[in-house]
Amino acid sequence: MIRERARALLAEVAAGTRTPDEALDALVGAPLEPLAFAHVDHQRALRQGIPEVIYGPGKNTSEIVAIAERIVDRHARFLATRVSDAQAAALIERFPDCVANPRGRTVRFPARAERSGTGSILVVTAGTSDLPVAEECAETAASLGIVTNRLTDVGVAGLHRVVSGMDVLLKADVIVVVAGMDGALPSVVGGLVRVPVIAVPTSVGYGASFEGLAALLTMLNSCAAGIVVTNIDNGFGAAMAAARWLLK
Amino acid sequence: MIRERARALLAEVAAGTRTPDEALDALVGAPLEPLAFAHVDHQRALRQGIPEVIYGPGKNTSEIVAIAERIVDRHARFLATRVSDAQAAALIERFPDCVANPRGRTVRFPARAERSGTGSILVVTAGTSDLPVAEECAETAASLGIVTNRLTDVGVAGLHRVVSGMDVLLKADVIVVVAGMDGALPSVVGGLVRVPVIAVPTSVGYGASFEGLAALLTMLNSCAAGIVVTNIDNGFGAAMAAARWLLK
Amino acid sequence: MIRERARALLAEVAAGTRTPDEALDALVGAPLEPLAFAHVDHQRALRQGIPEVIYGPGKNTSEIVAIAERIVDRHARFLATRVSDAQAAALIERFPDCVANPRGRTVRFPARAERSGTGSILVVTAGTSDLPVAEECAETAASLGIVTNRLTDVGVAGLHRVVSGMDVLLKADVIVVVAGMDGALPSVVGGLVRVPVIAVPTSVGYGASFEGLAALLTMLNSCAAGIVVTNIDNGFGAAMAAARWLLK
Amino acid sequence: MIRERARALLAEVAAGTRTPDEALDALVGAPLEPLAFAHVDHQRALRQGIPEVIYGPGKNTSEIVAIAERIVDRHARFLATRVSDAQAAALIERFPDCVANPRGRTVRFPARAERSGTGSILVVTAGTSDLPVAEECAETAASLGIVTNRLTDVGVAGLHRVVSGMDVLLKADVIVVVAGMDGALPSVVGGLVRVPVIAVPTSVGYGASFEGLAALLTMLNSCAAGIVVTNIDNGFGAAMAAARWLLK
Amino acid sequence: MIRERARALLAEVAAGTRTPDEALDALVGAPLEPLAFAHVDHQRALRQGIPEVIYGPGKNTSEIVAIAERIVDRHARFLATRVSDAQAAALIERFPDCVANPRGRTVRFPARAERSGTGSILVVTAGTSDLPVAEECAETAASLGIVTNRLTDVGVAGLHRVVSGMDVLLKADVIVVVAGMDGALPSVVGGLVRVPVIAVPTSVGYGASFEGLAALLTMLNSCAAGIVVTNIDNGFGAAMAAARWLLK
Amino acid sequence: MIRERARALLAEVAAGTRTPDEALDALVGAPLEPLAFAHVDHQRALRQGIPEVIYGPGKNTSEIVAIAERIVDRHARFLATRVSDAQAAALIERFPDCVANPRGRTVRFPARAERSGTGSILVVTAGTSDLPVAEECAETAASLGIVTNRLTDVGVAGLHRVVSGMDVLLKADVIVVVAGMDGALPSVVGGLVRVPVIAVPTSVGYGASFEGLAALLTMLNSCAAGIVVTNIDNGFGAAMAAARWLLK
Amino acid sequence: MIRERARALLAEVAAGTRTPDEALDALVGAPLEPLAFAHVDHQRALRQGIPEVIYGPGKNTSEIVAIAERIVDRHARFLATRVSDAQAAALIERFPDCVANPRGRTVRFPARAERSGTGSILVVTAGTSDLPVAEECAETAASLGIVTNRLTDVGVAGLHRVVSGMDVLLKADVIVVVAGMDGALPSVVGGLVRVPVIAVPTSVGYGASFEGLAALLTMLNSCAAGIVVTNIDNGFGAAMAAARWLLK
Amino acid sequence: MIRERARALLAEVAAGTRTPDEALDALVGAPLEPLAFAHVDHQRALRQGIPEVIYGPGKNTSEIVAIAERIVDRHARFLATRVSDAQAAALIERFPDCVANPRGRTVRFPARAERSGTGSILVVTAGTSDLPVAEECAETAASLGIVTNRLTDVGVAGLHRVVSGMDVLLKADVIVVVAGMDGALPSVVGGLVRVPVIAVPTSVGYGASFEGLAALLTMLNSCAAGIVVTNIDNGFGAAMAAARWLLK
Repeated sequence: MIRERARALLAEVAAGTRTPDEALDALVGAPLEPLAFAHVDHQRALRQGIPEVIYGPGKNTSEIVAIAERIVDRHARFLATRVSDAQAAALIERFPDCVANPRGRTVRFPARAERSGTGSILVVTAGTSDLPVAEECAETAASLGIVTNRLTDVGVAGLHRVVSGMDVLLKADVIVVVAGMDGALPSVVGGLVRVPVIAVPTSVGYGASFEGLAALLTMLNSCAAGIVVTNIDNGFGAAMAAARWLLK
Repeated sequence: MIRERARALLAEVAAGTRTPDEALDALVGAPLEPLAFAHVDHQRALRQGIPEVIYGPGKNTSEIVAIAERIVDRHARFLATRVSDAQAAALIERFPDCVANPRGRTVRFPARAERSGTGSILVVTAGTSDLPVAEECAETAASLGIVTNRLTDVGVAGLHRVVSGMDVLLKADVIVVVAGMDGALPSVVGGLVRVPVIAVPTSVGYGASFEGLAALLTMLNSCAAGIVVTNIDNGFGAAMAAARWLLK
Repeated sequence: MIRERARALLAEVAAGTRTPDEALDALVGAPLEPLAFAHVDHQRALRQGIPEVIYGPGKNTSEIVAIAERIVDRHARFLATRVSDAQAAALIERFPDCVANPRGRTVRFPARAERSGTGSILVVTAGTSDLPVAEECAETAASLGIVTNRLTDVGVAGLHRVVSGMDVLLKADVIVVVAGMDGALPSVVGGLVRVPVIAVPTSVGYGASFEGLAALLTMLNSCAAGIVVTNIDNGFGAAMAAARWLLK
Repeated sequence: MIRERARALLAEVAAGTRTPDEALDALVGAPLEPLAFAHVDHQRALRQGIPEVIYGPGKNTSEIVAIAERIVDRHARFLATRVSDAQAAALIERFPDCVANPRGRTVRFPARAERSGTGSILVVTAGTSDLPVAEECAETAASLGIVTNRLTDVGVAGLHRVVSGMDVLLKADVIVVVAGMDGALPSVVGGLVRVPVIAVPTSVGYGASFEGLAALLTMLNSCAAGIVVTNIDNGFGAAMAAARWLLK
Repeated sequence: MIRERARALLAEVAAGTRTPDEALDALVGAPLEPLAFAHVDHQRALRQGIPEVIYGPGKNTSEIVAIAERIVDRHARFLATRVSDAQAAALIERFPDCVANPRGRTVRFPARAERSGTGSILVVTAGTSDLPVAEECAETAASLGIVTNRLTDVGVAGLHRVVSGMDVLLKADVIVVVAGMDGALPSVVGGLVRVPVIAVPTSVGYGASFEGLAALLTMLNSCAAGIVVTNIDNGFGAAMAAARWLLK
Repeated sequence: MIRERARALLAEVAAGTRTPDEALDALVGAPLEPLAFAHVDHQRALRQGIPEVIYGPGKNTSEIVAIAERIVDRHARFLATRVSDAQAAALIERFPDCVANPRGRTVRFPARAERSGTGSILVVTAGTSDLPVAEECAETAASLGIVTNRLTDVGVAGLHRVVSGMDVLLKADVIVVVAGMDGALPSVVGGLVRVPVIAVPTSVGYGASFEGLAALLTMLNSCAAGIVVTNIDNGFGAAMAAARWLLK
Repeated sequence: MIRERARALLAEVAAGTRTPDEALDALVGAPLEPLAFAHVDHQRALRQGIPEVIYGPGKNTSEIVAIAERIVDRHARFLATRVSDAQAAALIERFPDCVANPRGRTVRFPARAERSGTGSILVVTAGTSDLPVAEECAETAASLGIVTNRLTDVGVAGLHRVVSGMDVLLKADVIVVVAGMDGALPSVVGGLVRVPVIAVPTSVGYGASFEGLAALLTMLNSCAAGIVVTNIDNGFGAAMAAARWLLK
Repeated sequence: MIRERARALLAEVAAGTRTPDEALDALVGAPLEPLAFAHVDHQRALRQGIPEVIYGPGKNTSEIVAIAERIVDRHARFLATRVSDAQAAALIERFPDCVANPRGRTVRFPARAERSGTGSILVVTAGTSDLPVAEECAETAASLGIVTNRLTDVGVAGLHRVVSGMDVLLKADVIVVVAGMDGALPSVVGGLVRVPVIAVPTSVGYGASFEGLAALLTMLNSCAAGIVVTNIDNGFGAAMAAARWLLK
């Protein structure tokens, strides 16, 4: 559209209906700024599947519904994360065809997303308390049309559980490892596979876990080379990172 | 210049020597990106007095001299901060007319900068150990053509010293308060004056000063309303912040 | 007034109606202490617009109303910040002509403040969750008679949004940039403009945002020279800092 | 007494009515341990006025009453700190002659304590939000029979307020300075007086006050020599420290 | 091979030349442990290009040469990181065909690695002080046969520099963004591209950069969705992470 | 059991009822992975007393009951820690023979565990507020059939209390020392005894105790050699550590 | 003196040799400011024994000698702390009658100070590595004419050593307890005595001592009521705090 | 010995060669204090193998030799830790029969210690950089007459290496696991064995390892139940902890 407007301006110049100086002002003035970003918008358009995501905290129920409506109008889909029960209820009422995941605190619409790409994400969790973060990751992936598989409750203190999942690990395209407490699981998984491993520390734990800081530091210092890390409890971000690889 | 190039393109379109589509490609393609930033460059040009500053750490003596030469070629001036003795010596040898301040670890060129604006900065220090940061501030100001005055060694533990400087404080346009250890001085000064107060924590102290963290936190929590803060030991930044007001 | 009292004393000494020793006691005794601070009071009087601000936390509703009454008696105006819903309700009941801003958690009186100075503040926010802090800033400015403009939701991850606001940015007198999470916006804005930029980190975020610490550190380390920083969530302080420039 | 028991044992050995080995067991066995600590108990007895203090958190109302009863039985007095409303109510019901201070969260019994020593404590506070800690300090002092005076709301941003209190400051025996936010007040007070200054940081503030850490660090780094510091919000500890001087 | 050994054992049992119990001991005893890890070794073999990397710190020159020799014997290549000048000199003397990068503190052998895969890494740096980390990243990639491109000195305070590099950014397969101080660059880059962005905080800065902590936190809290982060100064790890995608 | 399955397979091969290849698949295929860990399982089996422990947080009442049932089915016992009142009530209703400890927030089943080994644990606490952690430790020990003794309220500020407990200390097999606030008790106890001392910091305290961080650091830096430390408030872990010694 | 000057002015007014307005200018003008602080100066004069102390870091040898000379001129004494070997040598050369303490890094002059007051300080150290801080404390006290006694190497891990010093502890007027690592000693000492206890954390230790932070936190959280704390390694401050009591 | 002295005194009383009062003075007087600690000393005597250990830092070569001589006089053995090269050389010259371990920075004497107990320590290390801490542990054990075995370089990123060491792990009496960086190894080892596991974090790493803090937090939050932790780099403490079990 911006390109079209520029093209029209230039056509007017060629036609002599607009002087070069007038066109210059129109192009270089304030309205022109977005032009240089035309690519950006273009390439944002390419990844249509990733419209702005709704972050729940600090919005009341009518605000969150209004924002969802606006996004649906443009993209026919939305994803809301970290929603409260009240926010979820309001979205469900307005968009009955949505999928609400109470554990992951997400609502996405529509229920069925067209599959994007061919790869899938394996979400590995250390303990059952890490599941909410895994759910957020899976729901985000689902909203992007990416399939996720699970390997659950394979903390490193029971090594045989990790090893039992070896086959699943070796088949994965991208692995998201979700772990709280000592956050040691990504180091073990990272040493077993050669595909991308995205480590997500969780705030699961108490005392010196310092709300996930311990797990975060563990993962940043992983002795398995090439592990990358997201913010604490950021299942959403891990799925988005995986999407950068799977959908690129 | 960019504007000129755009104007030339448009003239060619008007003259029929270039089609609108060719011009579009030239404008919207990669070379066009900087266009939208023409203002930026324009307004950067307006503040000619603030060319890129040379940050000493990590450069060898020949590199720092080469960079200084390049900047002098374009701006006829330079400022280097946090320079080592060897870097300073190399710059002095190459630019004999420079001003080197060993305590402030700066070198600036030329010795005499034309005065900018009419305001001046008052640099207040809590203790003599804070002087290197005050010097860096003063030298940065000098390189911008801004005059600085001093009120030195007026730590809050000797309140009469602050009060003795009352007249000086009340005449200032902008006050930069440099303090380590407890960092309490900006709170006192901020309560005495109504002009802008820029607080610079220093790493002076030991033990629980944690390299300036204590002073930084004190200043961020100042009970004097409207105190603003820079990074620890950032005399350079304080002068630049003052310049944003005095030269705007 | 104090000066007058001193002058009267001296006149009595000259007239012989008071001995030098009596005058000395009157001057040097306890009541005299404020004398040296006469300037201070004088210049405080000059900025009449900034009477003591009421900080809500820890006051019950009758206390906060009583304090507001006392300040209104002397200054015909007040500003209360971080007020609870109950505190706001009590103030509204007592001062029907006040302006209560629930999002900014402020109450100010009277609704209409006379405009001070000619400059204005541009408040830029990275995300919608940063709005409460922006509101506190705007309300504080309003209580001082300073006009604020807004540039909202221009986080750096969507750079075209910042650039689209270029014209607004370039017209500002002082810019307050409010941002949580990565706190990167002030660095970008600071590089685009030459006016004062006051960065306000917010506690928006989770996990490794550590309640705003991440954004605070980002801003203190800004690669844009001359950015100054306030405490986390301190919209009030940012407005007060801006006032130091605009009203000086 | 212990010495007597030992002497008796030795007499029996001398008399041959007890073998050396039997005496050895009696002397070196478990019952002997307290012997070396006889002084300790003796000197604890000397400061009868400081029986064990009841720390409220984690005790239910019947527990706290029972503990208070036991202490009253032995010492005819008690002090409870950090009590909840329910705990306070229970203590008031059981000990109608007690003094409950809701702001300081203390209950002490009996209402009237005999005055100890001749000195008094001056409790200085920076802001009204620091009052709960000041109250805890004053109530602790009262329970020890020590008189406290007050100098309130003399934060350093309004220096004239501190100076107005000069006379009061200069008459004090021991000064407890209670301050949150920037915690700068003890540095100012410490520079004005030569008596002991005990600095108590409070958790008053937000953002980078980090629950009182900022004030704590400020005080530990005070540029006024000889300032000593207690834990955050520890009004109780400050009074106890003052008592060590006033009652020694 | 392990499978073959197991098969042989079972054949012997079937042939009656070994009892089930003997076979059981052979299978379940210590020598069997590696069996379950056969896949692992197999897949490790597949990525032959990534033999153990030599971490310089704490090794003397003869040790580091010996280790390099052992790895070269098995893999005909090696990569040493964080080497001292003395370590580099010793390796150069022993392996004249190596590539030593003093700025990146790496030595790799042989000089020419066969190209792996078809993708390449774009290494973007905020300032010239970040170059050592960028060099470590590039050398690691080179040792794996991966091509790297560069976009240098595009810190966010000069936004036009980032935008000028738009074309380069949009062509990249994987982007490694290296930045110290405020660490804001990955947020800007992440918002401009849809490919994987690996953010590497550096220890460049002073004061409240806390040796790279500020940049690390910024990146973990990036408002650009799907940014992943490595340890501070970990150029090596970023290349290894990129390799997981490019070589998978 | 796994060993039995392997033996059965081999017997079938020996008997000719299964071909070596069929057996190989059964042994080496995915199901085989656990085999290498047979020892592990075997030795886990040996300590039957330590089945998986149920961590309460994040489970609803029906989930926690279901998990407890599953564990009881296999092990005829269970231990649940950090349970809420509701969780405890649900478990009590389902397993009337359980032991619920509200202070320690544990439920264990059955009420009577067979005594394991001959040693016992001495749990020493500094203050009454540390009792919940001591209870968790004792209940964990009880669920393992280990006897615990107590030495309560022997904080180092009343040294005679520690010394009075000397006999008890000297008879202990393993000592768990539970302390909050200054966390000094393990240093004193560690210097008095030669048996293992496991130090458990608690979150008891306020202000600069930073939720137990102060006590944790104290214990890690103990001047009594050979003190080992667990996470903050980890009474469970201390009992498990003691069990490693007493039941080995 | 200031009072005298004021009195003289008033006498001149009374005598008619100076008009009231002239006197007013002299009194209220800039030179008057110090007036309100007359008490301050007066009382500062009273503690003549505590002239400004010279803090070594950041001064070259000629600067430190010059400052010492100036202080000696006014006060006939000086104390320099944290001096380097070169600084000490320069001071010794200039003031041969000084006392240099290499371990405490102090130089004081003259060698013999007149005894002030009747009380003395007991300096208790946990380990021999804490001696430098103890020496700084003792030298500071000596420079003030205060006698110090010692109780050395009585760390809490060897409780009998503390108890052996019981008699010494009970005779002290003020006790300074110097301890690194776990910092537990003040809690034990504070529980044994009723006199003031000033706790000085030292940076002795490694790892999780975090340069004295562990000891600092321990002391701030001491379970012995009424312990006060100084900055890490601040032997100087502890002596000054003791002086506030002993010399008041 | 103390018991012997008491017994001798009593024998003299029984024999009539000493009066009860004389014996009383000898037993209960000032010299008596240690008596109550007779058990302590007695039991300290029992572990003769653990005389005071010499901590190198802060001692000059003549001091360290003198201390070693004094300890050798009483105990015929010594252990010095964290010794500098110069300290080691001085000790070697004086005690040619000592064992100096440059990597572990220890010197112990005599070379051959009599074996204590029957158990042994297995020291497991994650990487070769962790060896100095492992050496300190082994030398400390050797000085106590305890045998150590090694399992080296078995970091969790190469899980097959841990599993290959399974037999060694299962035979250990006490396991000390030494690991830096992510500190994940103790979690894995702790899940594989049932004997005591003492985790020692090391300062190996960079950036967000924060000098071992990351590994420390990982270990404190280990998901393997019953892991205990020492200070960072505290190989000495781990051996002493192991000795508490093996020699009790």
